[in-house]
Amino acid sequence: MTDVNDVTAAPGARDVTLLVLNAEPPPRLGSLTGRTRILHGDESTIARQLPEADVLLVWDFLSDAVRHAWPGPGARPRWVHTASAGVDHLMCPELTASDTVVTNARGIFETPIAEYVAGLVLAAAKHFSGTNELQRQRRWQHRETRRVAGTRAVVVGSGPIGRAVAATLKGLGVKVALTGRTARAGVHGPEDLMPLLAGADWVVAAAPLTDATRGMFDARAFGAMSPNSYFINVGRGQLVVEEDLLSALHKRWIGGAALDVFEQEPLQPESPLWDVPGLVVSPHMSGDVVGWRDELTTQFLELFDLWAAGKPLPNVVDKNVGYVPLHD
Amino acid sequence: MTDVNDVTAAPGARDVTLLVLNAEPPPRLGSLTGRTRILHGDESTIARQLPEADVLLVWDFLSDAVRHAWPGPGARPRWVHTASAGVDHLMCPELTASDTVVTNARGIFETPIAEYVAGLVLAAAKHFSGTNELQRQRRWQHRETRRVAGTRAVVVGSGPIGRAVAATLKGLGVKVALTGRTARAGVHGPEDLMPLLAGADWVVAAAPLTDATRGMFDARAFGAMSPNSYFINVGRGQLVVEEDLLSALHKRWIGGAALDVFEQEPLQPESPLWDVPGLVVSPHMSGDVVGWRDELTTQFLELFDLWAAGKPLPNVVDKNVGYVPLHD
Repeated sequence: MTDVNDVTAAPGARDVTLLVLNAEPPPRLGSLTGRTRILHGDESTIARQLPEADVLLVWDFLSDAVRHAWPGPGARPRWVHTASAGVDHLMCPELTASDTVVTNARGIFETPIAEYVAGLVLAAAKHFSGTNELQRQRRWQHRETRRVAGTRAVVVGSGPIGRAVAATLKGLGVKVALTGRTARAGVHGPEDLMPLLAGADWVVAAAPLTDATRGMFDARAFGAMSPNSYFINVGRGQLVVEEDLLSALHKRWIGGAALDVFEQEPLQPESPLWDVPGLVVSPHMSGDVVGWRDELTTQFLELFDLWAAGKPLPNVVDKNVGYVPLHD
Repeated sequence: MTDVNDVTAAPGARDVTLLVLNAEPPPRLGSLTGRTRILHGDESTIARQLPEADVLLVWDFLSDAVRHAWPGPGARPRWVHTASAGVDHLMCPELTASDTVVTNARGIFETPIAEYVAGLVLAAAKHFSGTNELQRQRRWQHRETRRVAGTRAVVVGSGPIGRAVAATLKGLGVKVALTGRTARAGVHGPEDLMPLLAGADWVVAAAPLTDATRGMFDARAFGAMSPNSYFINVGRGQLVVEEDLLSALHKRWIGGAALDVFEQEPLQPESPLWDVPGLVVSPHMSGDVVGWRDELTTQFLELFDLWAAGKPLPNVVDKNVGYVPLHD
C-alpha cells in the first residue's frame, strides 16, 4: 500500500471534477485536494451535481442515491468508483447500459471478512457464547466442544471474498466447497448447491447481490441443511429471506446462525432478529478493521492516478453480472 | 485411530493387573475387559492398591492422589499412563527416581487446543463480546475491529501443544515466536522472553508446569507486555500468578485475557476472577472435543498392547523435565 502523500495525480487531474458522495467523515483525499475540483454531495444534491462530475466516488455503501439519481437528465460521470465490494446499491439499467466504467474496492475487505468468518466458526464450535453466559453466572461447567478440523463448509460466492473465506477455513482443516454462478475449476455451479448444503457443517453466504442470488437462502435452502449446521451471512442481507431463517432456527432445521448484513440496515430496535436463540447479530462490520477508511482512500487515489493518466483500471465491475469477474 | 474392538491384547496381558484411577464415568476398556485384571481406584484406595498394580492408568488429571500415595510402602507399577498432556499432577521425587515409565496423551489435545486459542484470538480481535452485549441491548453500533494477519504472538511452550498453536496462528497470518526451556532451532530461550512479550499482541501460555515455569507470568511479565496485548492460558493455572494478572488487568497493563486453567480447579463461585472486565473464564475445556474420552481410551489400549508385548512405548515422559522431549 503506497502512502497517500506519495501519490502524484497526473496533470489531467486538474481539469477533472470529482463528486464524492456521502462521505461522513470526509475521506482524506490527500494529493487531490487543491489539484482537482472536488464536490461533496448527498442524496439531496446528487441529481443536480451528476452532470458536472467526471468521476463519482461513492463512499457510503448504504445509500441508494446513485441508483435513483442516475437515470436523470444531463451528462454522466465517465467513471464511478464505490468504496465497497458490492455494487448492488448503485447499479440501475441506465448505468449498466452506459459507457461509464464502474470499479469497486476489491482487495480491501477479503482478509478481514475471512478472519471474521473463521472467528464465527470457531466461536460456535467452541461454544464461546455458552461460556460467556456461564461465566456471568459464576458456574464452572465443563462441556465437550467441537473439533473444527475435518468439518465441512460450503462457501456461496466464488469472488475474492468467498475465496479468501475458503482459504482461511481450509487453513483450519475444514473441507470447503465453493459455489458460484457457473461451474468451473474448483467452483461448483448452482446445480450442486442443495446436496452440498445437506452435507455442510458451515454455510457461508459471501455472494454479491444480483438477480440470481436475491433470496437464495429461503425455506428450501434452510430445509436442505442439517440440524447441526451453522449459517453465516457476510454478503448482503437480501441474499436471505429473513422470515425463513427465523422459522428455520425456531424449528431447529439449522443449529445456529450469524448475520452481519440485513434486508434493512441499520436493523431497527424493534426487529425480531435481535433476540432469536442461536442467532448472532452484528452491524455490518465484518470487513471493517482499524485503518479501513485510509485503505479505501489510498486505493481510490491509486485508481484515480491511473484513470487520469489514461491507463487501464483494475477492479472493473462487469455491470451485467454485478461484480468483478475473476480470470482463473 | 484404530477401533477399540480391533485391539488385541498380547498374551502377557492376562497376567497383568491394571489399576484405573478416578475414572468417572469408567473408560470403555474394550478388549482388556475380562483378559486383564482391572482394579478401579480413587483417592481413598490407591495407597492400598498401588503395590498390586503392574500398570496405573491415571484418568483424572485434576487429582493429585498419585503424587501423595506413590512414596508409600510396597511394590510400585512399572508403567504409569496419564490421560492428559501434563504430568504435573502425578510427579513426585520418588516416581522420578524410580524405574517406572511414565507416558502421556500426546497427540490427542493439540489440534483442539490450537483451534480454541485461534478462536479466542479472533473473538478478541473482532470484539465478539462487545457485539454480544450490544445485541442484548438491541443496539446497532458499527465498530472497527482488528486485522489478525500481521499481528505478533508469543507462544510460551515449545511442546506439541505450543507448536500446534503456533502453526494455527501462523496459518492466520500471525507472526509467531515460540519460546521454550532452552534456545534451539525455531525456539527462543528464556533470555528472549521479556523483549518478545513487549512486542506481542497475543501471549499464549502453553507450557508444562515445572519448577522452571511455575508462576512465570507474574507482575514482571505482565508489566513487560503492551496495553493492547491479550494473554491466554491453556497450559496450567499455576503458570500464572493470578493476583498479578488481576492487577495487570485493573491497571490496564494488558488489554485483556482468557484463562482456561486456574490455580485451583474447579474455580470456586466466590473467586474474584469470574467478573473481571476483559477476562474470559472457561472451565479447563480447551482440549476437550466430542469424542476425546474415546480417543484417550483408544490411545491407552494401543500403548497397553505395545507394553504387554515388550515393545518400546511412544509418549515417554522425561521425568526430570516433566514432559515428552521433542527431537527435532
